[in-house]
Amino acid sequence: MLDLPLPHPLASSGTGPVLRIAAAEDLDAVVVLLADDPLSRSRGDEPGGADPGYRQGFAEIEADPSNALIVLEDDGVVIGTMQLTRLPGLSRGGARRLQIEAVRIRADRRSGGLGGAMIRWATDVAAPVVGARMVQLTSDASRAAAHAFYERLGFTPSHIGFKRAVPRA
Amino acid sequence: MLDLPLPHPLASSGTGPVLRIAAAEDLDAVVVLLADDPLSRSRGDEPGGADPGYRQGFAEIEADPSNALIVLEDDGVVIGTMQLTRLPGLSRGGARRLQIEAVRIRADRRSGGLGGAMIRWATDVAAPVVGARMVQLTSDASRAAAHAFYERLGFTPSHIGFKRAVPRA
Repeated sequence: MLDLPLPHPLASSGTGPVLRIAAAEDLDAVVVLLADDPLSRSRGDEPGGADPGYRQGFAEIEADPSNALIVLEDDGVVIGTMQLTRLPGLSRGGARRLQIEAVRIRADRRSGGLGGAMIRWATDVAAPVVGARMVQLTSDASRAAAHAFYERLGFTPSHIGFKRAVPRA
Repeated sequence: MLDLPLPHPLASSGTGPVLRIAAAEDLDAVVVLLADDPLSRSRGDEPGGADPGYRQGFAEIEADPSNALIVLEDDGVVIGTMQLTRLPGLSRGGARRLQIEAVRIRADRRSGGLGGAMIRWATDVAAPVVGARMVQLTSDASRAAAHAFYERLGFTPSHIGFKRAVPRA
């Protein structure tokens, strides 16, 4: 697991929603968040998380010193998630990067600033802590609201993200 | 270092250009390839590699069990490079991914099929070997020729890639 200064309350008062490392008991709630999205469902993510692939993926993230699965908890309930990956590299003078994937805020808690606060923690706290000089992420081309959200947070849509499925052997 | 079936001759005859893991002695040649590009120079990458950040970045890739820096060597000379990263994840049923970064073929060796053969090795050999069900990469929005190249290789430009610099503390 990537070493990060968590738990972290989003509000300076120290009360309310808290970012923390996901535990095995959070897995079902995280899978529900990932699946609560028309695009993710179209890719085969199902609420319930019966697929043993989820447990395997969680175990791999937990065992990996460059990755962290993070949840946003409010009043004992998981209402958001993101995955962070530290990437070594040679480009840009050997700059380390922080990559954000699988960002979700529960539908009924969106537009209240929680997602922005979560991403700002990643760019302003997590990235310097892991020594990253660049934060990167991709967002499906159809997610116009997400693109405006990331631009407001200082991200530049400078790249095209390409994906290619690998046929199962 | 990510465990991969290398070295790998690109031609089935076993002669000619060979993909292999980069060694410390290749670092200057790789930095020259990365810098031989107007976009990379605009980001501060300089041929010569005097910046100690390059040695640090190389050491981090080499020490990381999820990363590999690969070079394409022909007749004792490095003519291409790419970095591969294995990413654990929960999306798409807990699918592992392979990410490709920092792809370069020396300018005078482009358009001869070497880049395509290198990427096909990543999608068809490396991805199954590391258990990845998805291969992903981003390409600067201005690189129209690169986009056509990746589409010919079966990649879909489904995402927008966002980047944000982290101010040096």
